[in-house]
Amino acid sequence: MTTATIAKPTRKEPKPLHGVKTPELFATINAVAAQPELAKFTWRAKSRWMRGTHTRSTINGYFGAGGEQDRGKDFIADADHTTVLTGDDKGPTPAEWILHGLAACLTAGIANIAAARGIELDEVTATIEGDMDLRGILGISDEVRNGYQGIRVRFDVKGDAPPEKLKQIVEQSCARSAVFDIVTNRTPVTVEVA
Amino acid sequence: MTTATIAKPTRKEPKPLHGVKTPELFATINAVAAQPELAKFTWRAKSRWMRGTHTRSTINGYFGAGGEQDRGKDFIADADHTTVLTGDDKGPTPAEWILHGLAACLTAGIANIAAARGIELDEVTATIEGDMDLRGILGISDEVRNGYQGIRVRFDVKGDAPPEKLKQIVEQSCARSAVFDIVTNRTPVTVEVA
Repeated sequence: MTTATIAKPTRKEPKPLHGVKTPELFATINAVAAQPELAKFTWRAKSRWMRGTHTRSTINGYFGAGGEQDRGKDFIADADHTTVLTGDDKGPTPAEWILHGLAACLTAGIANIAAARGIELDEVTATIEGDMDLRGILGISDEVRNGYQGIRVRFDVKGDAPPEKLKQIVEQSCARSAVFDIVTNRTPVTVEVA
Repeated sequence: MTTATIAKPTRKEPKPLHGVKTPELFATINAVAAQPELAKFTWRAKSRWMRGTHTRSTINGYFGAGGEQDRGKDFIADADHTTVLTGDDKGPTPAEWILHGLAACLTAGIANIAAARGIELDEVTATIEGDMDLRGILGISDEVRNGYQGIRVRFDVKGDAPPEKLKQIVEQSCARSAVFDIVTNRTPVTVEVA
Protein backbone atom coordinates (compact mmCIF):
# COMPACT_ATOMS: atom_id res chain seq x y z
CA MET A 1 0.00 0.00 0.00
CA THR A 2 2.14 2.77 1.31
CA THR A 3 5.55 1.58 0.33
CA ALA A 4 4.10 0.23 -2.88
CA THR A 5 3.49 3.75 -4.15
CA ILE A 6 7.02 4.92 -3.74
CA ALA A 7 8.71 1.58 -4.41
CA LYS A 8 6.77 0.49 -7.48
CA PRO A 9 7.65 -1.32 -9.69
CA THR A 10 10.48 -3.08 -7.85
CA ARG A 11 9.88 -5.94 -5.45
CA LYS A 12 13.45 -6.05 -4.16
CA GLU A 13 14.13 -5.72 -0.46
CA PRO A 14 14.99 -2.10 0.30
CA LYS A 15 18.70 -1.50 0.73
CA PRO A 16 20.67 1.69 1.28
CA LEU A 17 21.70 3.26 -2.02
CA HIS A 18 23.69 6.39 -2.93
CA GLY A 19 23.39 7.82 0.57
CA VAL A 20 19.65 7.19 0.92
CA LYS A 21 18.80 5.12 4.01
CA THR A 22 16.12 3.17 2.15
CA PRO A 23 15.10 0.78 4.95
CA GLU A 24 14.67 3.73 7.36
CA LEU A 25 12.74 5.65 4.69
CA PHE A 26 10.32 2.74 4.27
CA ALA A 27 10.03 2.35 8.04
CA THR A 28 9.22 6.07 8.32
CA ILE A 29 6.53 5.82 5.65
CA ASN A 30 5.00 2.82 7.42
CA ALA A 31 5.11 4.54 10.82
CA VAL A 32 3.38 7.64 9.44
CA ALA A 33 0.77 5.52 7.64
CA ALA A 34 -0.01 3.80 10.94
CA GLN A 35 -0.07 7.08 12.94
CA PRO A 36 -1.19 9.93 10.66
CA GLU A 37 -0.70 12.56 13.40
CA LEU A 38 3.05 12.05 12.96
CA ALA A 39 2.64 13.56 9.48
CA LYS A 40 1.75 17.03 10.77
CA PHE A 41 4.75 19.31 10.29
CA THR A 42 5.23 23.06 10.70
CA TRP A 43 8.38 24.44 9.08
CA ARG A 44 9.69 27.84 10.17
CA ALA A 45 12.09 30.64 9.38
CA LYS A 46 12.89 33.82 11.26
CA SER A 47 14.08 36.73 9.22
CA ARG A 48 15.67 40.04 10.06
CA TRP A 49 16.09 43.04 7.79
CA MET A 50 19.76 44.04 7.72
CA ARG A 51 19.86 47.24 5.62
CA GLY A 52 18.72 48.29 2.14
CA THR A 53 17.13 45.22 0.54
CA HIS A 54 19.33 42.77 2.46
CA THR A 55 17.57 40.25 4.72
CA ARG A 56 19.01 37.40 6.77
CA SER A 57 17.02 34.35 7.89
CA THR A 58 17.68 31.81 10.59
CA ILE A 59 16.30 28.32 10.12
CA ASN A 60 16.40 25.66 12.79
CA GLY A 61 13.48 24.36 14.85
CA TYR A 62 10.30 22.89 13.45
CA PHE A 63 7.35 20.90 14.65
CA GLY A 64 7.04 17.38 13.31
CA ALA A 65 6.88 13.67 14.07
CA GLY A 66 4.73 14.49 17.06
CA GLY A 67 6.82 17.16 18.75
CA GLU A 68 9.13 20.16 18.59
CA GLN A 69 12.43 19.38 16.89
CA ASP A 70 15.69 21.26 17.33
CA ARG A 71 18.58 20.60 14.97
CA GLY A 72 21.16 21.78 17.48
CA LYS A 73 22.41 24.27 14.91
CA ASP A 74 21.11 27.29 13.02
CA PHE A 75 21.19 27.60 9.25
CA ILE A 76 21.78 31.22 8.22
CA ALA A 77 20.79 32.52 4.78
CA ASP A 78 21.01 35.94 3.14
CA ALA A 79 18.99 37.48 0.37
CA ASP A 80 19.28 40.81 -1.40
CA HIS A 81 18.41 42.53 -4.63
CA THR A 82 21.11 42.73 -7.28
CA THR A 83 23.06 45.92 -7.87
CA VAL A 84 21.30 46.21 -11.25
CA LEU A 85 18.10 46.64 -9.23
CA THR A 86 19.74 49.06 -6.77
CA GLY A 87 20.43 46.39 -4.14
CA ASP A 88 23.83 45.44 -2.71
CA ASP A 89 24.02 41.82 -3.91
CA LYS A 90 24.66 40.43 -0.42
CA GLY A 91 22.84 37.21 -1.31
CA PRO A 92 20.71 35.62 -4.03
CA THR A 93 17.49 37.43 -4.86
CA PRO A 94 14.36 36.04 -3.20
CA ALA A 95 13.11 34.80 -6.58
CA GLU A 96 16.35 32.85 -7.12
CA TRP A 97 15.87 31.19 -3.71
CA ILE A 98 12.61 29.76 -5.05
CA LEU A 99 14.51 28.17 -7.95
CA HIS A 100 16.98 26.63 -5.48
CA GLY A 101 14.14 25.27 -3.35
CA LEU A 102 12.39 23.76 -6.36
CA ALA A 103 15.53 22.15 -7.78
CA ALA A 104 16.52 20.77 -4.37
CA CYS A 105 13.05 19.36 -3.66
CA LEU A 106 12.84 17.56 -6.99
CA THR A 107 16.41 16.26 -6.65
CA ALA A 108 15.85 14.88 -3.13
CA GLY A 109 12.74 13.15 -4.42
CA ILE A 110 14.66 11.67 -7.35
CA ALA A 111 17.28 10.26 -4.96
CA ASN A 112 14.67 8.77 -2.61
CA ILE A 113 12.50 7.30 -5.35
CA ALA A 114 15.48 5.84 -7.23
CA ALA A 115 16.71 4.18 -4.02
CA ALA A 116 13.23 2.84 -3.30
CA ARG A 117 13.15 1.34 -6.80
CA GLY A 118 16.60 -0.18 -6.38
CA ILE A 119 18.18 2.08 -9.02
CA GLU A 120 21.57 3.51 -8.13
CA LEU A 121 22.24 7.04 -9.31
CA ASP A 122 25.62 8.37 -10.41
CA GLU A 123 24.87 12.00 -11.10
CA VAL A 124 21.91 14.37 -11.07
CA THR A 125 22.26 17.96 -12.19
CA ALA A 126 19.63 20.54 -13.01
CA THR A 127 19.50 23.90 -14.66
CA ILE A 128 16.48 25.88 -13.64
CA GLU A 129 15.37 29.26 -14.88
CA GLY A 130 12.38 31.49 -14.48
CA ASP A 131 11.18 34.41 -16.59
CA MET A 132 9.98 37.58 -14.96
CA ASP A 133 8.74 40.87 -16.37
CA LEU A 134 9.77 43.44 -13.78
CA ARG A 135 7.03 45.86 -14.78
CA GLY A 136 4.92 43.94 -12.25
CA ILE A 137 7.03 44.38 -9.14
CA LEU A 138 8.10 47.88 -10.14
CA GLY A 139 4.46 48.97 -10.26
CA ILE A 140 4.66 50.00 -13.91
CA SER A 141 1.94 47.69 -15.18
CA ASP A 142 -1.04 46.04 -13.56
CA GLU A 143 -1.34 43.61 -16.44
CA VAL A 144 1.97 41.90 -15.75
CA ARG A 145 2.18 39.46 -12.88
CA ASN A 146 4.74 40.03 -10.14
CA GLY A 147 6.09 36.48 -10.08
CA TYR A 148 7.47 34.13 -12.69
CA GLN A 149 5.64 33.85 -15.97
CA GLY A 150 7.08 30.37 -16.27
CA ILE A 151 9.84 28.17 -14.89
CA ARG A 152 11.88 25.63 -16.86
CA VAL A 153 13.79 22.80 -15.22
CA ARG A 154 16.22 20.66 -17.23
CA PHE A 155 17.48 17.55 -15.44
CA ASP A 156 20.42 15.44 -16.44
CA VAL A 157 20.18 12.10 -14.63
CA LYS A 158 22.77 9.32 -14.84
CA GLY A 159 22.21 5.96 -13.15
CA ASP A 160 22.03 2.21 -13.63
CA ALA A 161 18.72 2.15 -15.50
CA PRO A 162 17.56 2.91 -19.05
CA PRO A 163 16.63 6.53 -19.84
CA GLU A 164 12.91 5.74 -19.74
CA LYS A 165 13.12 4.48 -16.15
CA LEU A 166 15.18 7.50 -15.08
CA LYS A 167 12.59 9.76 -16.67
CA GLN A 168 9.80 7.99 -14.74
CA ILE A 169 11.68 8.70 -11.50
CA VAL A 170 11.76 12.41 -12.31
CA GLU A 171 8.05 12.34 -13.12
CA GLN A 172 7.24 10.61 -9.84
CA SER A 173 9.34 13.17 -7.99
CA CYS A 174 7.31 16.00 -9.55
CA ALA A 175 4.11 14.19 -8.56
CA ARG A 176 5.20 14.05 -4.89
CA SER A 177 7.24 17.23 -4.47
CA ALA A 178 6.21 19.76 -1.83
CA VAL A 179 7.84 22.71 -3.62
CA PHE A 180 6.59 21.68 -7.08
CA ASP A 181 3.08 21.79 -5.59
CA ILE A 182 3.71 25.14 -3.85
CA VAL A 183 4.92 26.72 -7.09
CA THR A 184 2.42 25.22 -9.51
CA ASN A 185 -0.63 25.59 -7.25
CA ARG A 186 -2.06 28.22 -4.93
CA THR A 187 -1.09 28.36 -1.27
CA PRO A 188 -2.97 30.60 1.14
CA VAL A 189 -0.70 33.10 2.92
CA THR A 190 -1.76 35.29 5.83
CA VAL A 191 0.35 38.30 6.76
CA GLU A 192 0.03 39.98 10.16
CA VAL A 193 1.77 43.14 11.29
CA ALA A 194 2.59 43.66 14.95
CA MET B 1 2.46 57.57 -12.91
CA THR B 2 5.11 54.96 -12.32
CA THR B 3 6.82 56.43 -9.33
CA ALA B 4 3.45 57.55 -8.04
CA THR B 5 2.45 53.95 -7.37
CA ILE B 6 5.41 53.12 -5.24
CA ALA B 7 5.90 56.57 -3.74
CA LYS B 8 2.31 57.40 -2.88
CA PRO B 9 1.28 59.22 -0.76
CA THR B 10 4.46 61.23 -0.20
CA ARG B 11 5.44 64.15 -2.43
CA LYS B 12 8.90 64.55 -0.91
CA GLU B 13 11.95 64.42 -3.12
CA PRO B 14 13.41 60.92 -2.96
CA LYS B 15 16.44 60.63 -0.71
CA PRO B 16 18.51 57.62 0.35
CA LEU B 17 17.09 56.03 3.50
CA HIS B 18 18.16 53.04 5.61
CA GLY B 19 20.46 51.71 2.90
CA VAL B 20 17.95 52.06 0.07
CA LYS B 21 19.29 54.16 -2.82
CA THR B 22 15.93 55.81 -3.36
CA PRO B 23 16.91 58.21 -6.18
CA GLU B 24 18.50 55.33 -8.14
CA LEU B 25 15.43 53.18 -7.46
CA PHE B 26 13.15 55.87 -8.90
CA ALA B 27 15.50 56.37 -11.86
CA THR B 28 15.40 52.60 -12.52
CA ILE B 29 11.61 52.55 -12.44
CA ASN B 30 11.47 55.46 -14.86
CA ALA B 31 14.03 53.88 -17.18
CA VAL B 32 12.08 50.60 -17.29
CA ALA B 33 8.80 52.44 -17.82
CA ALA B 34 10.35 54.21 -20.82
CA GLN B 35 11.95 51.02 -22.21
CA PRO B 36 9.80 48.01 -21.25
CA GLU B 37 12.24 45.52 -22.82
CA LEU B 38 14.61 46.30 -19.93
CA ALA B 39 12.05 44.65 -17.65
CA LYS B 40 12.57 41.15 -19.08
CA PHE B 41 14.59 39.11 -16.60
CA THR B 42 15.51 35.43 -16.46
CA TRP B 43 16.77 34.23 -13.08
CA ARG B 44 18.73 30.98 -12.86
CA ALA B 45 20.14 28.37 -10.55
CA LYS B 46 22.26 25.32 -11.28
CA SER B 47 21.95 22.44 -8.88
CA ARG B 48 23.93 19.30 -8.29
CA TRP B 49 22.92 16.27 -6.26
CA MET B 50 25.58 15.55 -3.66
CA ARG B 51 24.45 12.32 -1.96
CA GLY B 52 21.34 11.06 -0.19
CA THR B 53 18.86 13.95 -0.22
CA HIS B 54 21.58 16.63 -0.19
CA THR B 55 21.65 19.07 -3.11
CA ARG B 56 23.88 22.09 -3.71
CA SER B 57 22.98 25.00 -5.97
CA THR B 58 25.11 27.67 -7.55
CA ILE B 59 23.51 31.02 -8.28
CA ASN B 60 25.22 33.77 -10.23
CA GLY B 61 24.41 34.92 -13.75
CA TYR B 62 21.04 36.10 -14.97
CA PHE B 63 19.57 37.88 -17.95
CA GLY B 64 18.15 41.32 -17.28
CA ALA B 65 18.26 45.02 -18.05
CA GLY B 66 18.83 44.15 -21.70
CA GLY B 67 21.72 41.70 -21.39
CA GLU B 68 23.53 38.88 -19.59
CA GLN B 69 24.65 39.86 -16.12
CA ASP B 70 27.46 38.25 -14.15
CA ARG B 71 27.90 39.04 -10.47
CA GLY B 72 31.57 38.17 -10.47
CA LYS B 73 30.90 35.69 -7.68
CA ASP B 74 28.89 32.53 -7.10
CA PHE B 75 26.39 32.10 -4.31
CA ILE B 76 26.39 28.51 -3.02
CA ALA B 77 23.41 27.03 -1.17
CA ASP B 78 22.72 23.60 0.27
CA ALA B 79 19.47 21.80 0.95
CA ASP B 80 18.73 18.47 2.54
CA HIS B 81 16.01 16.57 4.33
CA THR B 82 16.17 16.52 8.12
CA THR B 83 17.41 13.47 9.99
CA VAL B 84 13.84 12.94 11.25
CA LEU B 85 12.94 12.32 7.59
CA THR B 86 16.01 10.11 7.03
CA GLY B 87 18.10 12.92 5.50
CA ASP B 88 21.46 14.17 6.77
CA ASP B 89 20.50 17.75 7.65
CA LYS B 90 23.24 19.28 5.51
CA GLY B 91 21.07 22.33 4.82
CA PRO B 92 17.54 23.66 5.28
CA THR B 93 14.80 21.57 3.71
CA PRO B 94 13.57 22.77 0.30
CA ALA B 95 10.24 23.80 1.86
CA GLU B 96 12.07 25.99 4.41
CA TRP B 97 13.92 27.71 1.57
CA ILE B 98 10.55 28.83 0.24
CA LEU B 99 9.80 30.47 3.61
CA HIS B 100 13.15 32.28 3.46
CA GLY B 101 12.45 33.47 -0.07
CA LEU B 102 9.01 34.74 0.86
CA ALA B 103 10.17 36.55 4.02
CA ALA B 104 13.11 38.11 2.17
CA CYS B 105 11.00 39.26 -0.78
CA LEU B 106 8.41 40.94 1.44
CA THR B 107 11.12 42.52 3.61
CA ALA B 108 13.03 43.97 0.63
CA GLY B 109 9.76 45.40 -0.63
CA ILE B 110 9.02 46.93 2.77
CA ALA B 111 12.44 48.62 2.80
CA ASN B 112 12.06 49.99 -0.74
CA ILE B 113 8.49 51.19 -0.30
CA ALA B 114 9.22 52.81 3.06
CA ALA B 115 12.19 54.66 1.55
CA ALA B 116 10.07 55.76 -1.40
CA ARG B 117 7.50 57.12 1.03
CA GLY B 118 10.13 58.94 3.05
CA ILE B 119 9.66 56.71 6.11
CA GLU B 120 12.83 55.59 7.85
CA LEU B 121 12.79 52.07 9.26
CA ASP B 122 14.57 50.99 12.42
CA GLU B 123 13.85 47.30 12.52
CA VAL B 124 11.92 44.70 10.53
CA THR B 125 11.69 41.11 11.70
CA ALA B 126 9.42 38.31 10.58
CA THR B 127 8.46 34.90 11.79
CA ILE B 128 7.14 32.73 9.03
CA GLU B 129 5.73 29.24 9.26
CA GLY B 130 4.01 26.79 6.99
CA ASP B 131 1.93 23.73 7.79
CA MET B 132 2.43 20.52 5.88
CA ASP B 133 0.84 17.10 6.16
CA LEU B 134 3.56 14.70 5.07
CA ARG B 135 1.08 12.04 3.99
CA GLY B 136 1.14 13.88 0.65
CA ILE B 137 4.85 13.71 -0.16
CA LEU B 138 5.22 10.26 1.42
CA GLY B 139 2.59 8.89 -0.95
CA ILE B 140 0.29 7.76 1.86
CA SER B 141 -2.73 9.81 0.85
CA ASP B 142 -3.88 11.27 -2.44
CA GLU B 143 -6.28 13.57 -0.64
CA VAL B 144 -3.55 15.56 1.09
CA ARG B 145 -1.62 18.10 -0.93
CA ASN B 146 2.16 17.82 -1.14
CA GLY B 147 2.88 21.45 -0.36
CA TYR B 148 1.92 23.85 2.40
CA GLN B 149 -1.67 23.87 3.50
CA GLY B 150 -1.12 27.44 4.60
CA ILE B 151 1.66 29.89 5.43
CA ARG B 152 1.57 32.51 8.20
CA VAL B 153 3.85 35.55 8.24
CA ARG B 154 4.07 37.79 11.28
CA PHE B 155 5.95 41.05 10.76
CA ASP B 156 7.23 43.35 13.45
CA VAL B 157 8.03 46.72 11.87
CA LYS B 158 9.55 49.67 13.71
CA GLY B 159 10.03 53.02 12.00
CA ASP B 160 9.28 56.74 12.10
CA ALA B 161 5.61 56.48 11.18
CA PRO B 162 2.40 55.51 12.98
CA PRO B 163 1.46 51.80 13.03
CA GLU B 164 -1.22 52.31 10.38
CA LYS B 165 1.29 53.69 7.88
CA LEU B 166 3.76 50.89 8.61
CA LYS B 167 0.98 48.38 8.05
CA GLN B 168 0.14 49.99 4.69
CA ILE B 169 3.76 49.53 3.64
CA VAL B 170 3.58 45.82 4.40
CA GLU B 171 0.32 45.57 2.44
CA GLN B 172 1.86 47.33 -0.55
CA SER B 173 4.86 45.01 -0.36
CA CYS B 174 2.53 41.97 -0.56
CA ALA B 175 0.77 43.56 -3.52
CA ARG B 176 4.06 43.90 -5.44
CA SER B 177 6.07 40.92 -4.24
CA ALA B 178 7.35 38.40 -6.79
CA VAL B 179 7.51 35.53 -4.28
CA PHE B 180 4.16 36.34 -2.67
CA ASP B 181 2.66 36.01 -6.16
CA ILE B 182 4.58 32.78 -6.89
CA VAL B 183 3.35 31.19 -3.65
CA THR B 184 -0.24 32.40 -3.68
CA ASN B 185 -0.86 31.86 -7.39
CA ARG B 186 -0.09 29.21 -9.97
CA THR B 187 3.14 29.26 -11.94
CA PRO B 188 3.60 26.97 -14.95
CA VAL B 189 6.67 24.72 -14.58
CA THR B 190 8.07 22.53 -17.35
CA VAL B 191 10.46 19.72 -16.48
CA GLU B 192 12.70 18.12 -19.11
CA VAL B 193 14.98 15.15 -18.63
CA ALA B 194 18.13 14.82 -20.72
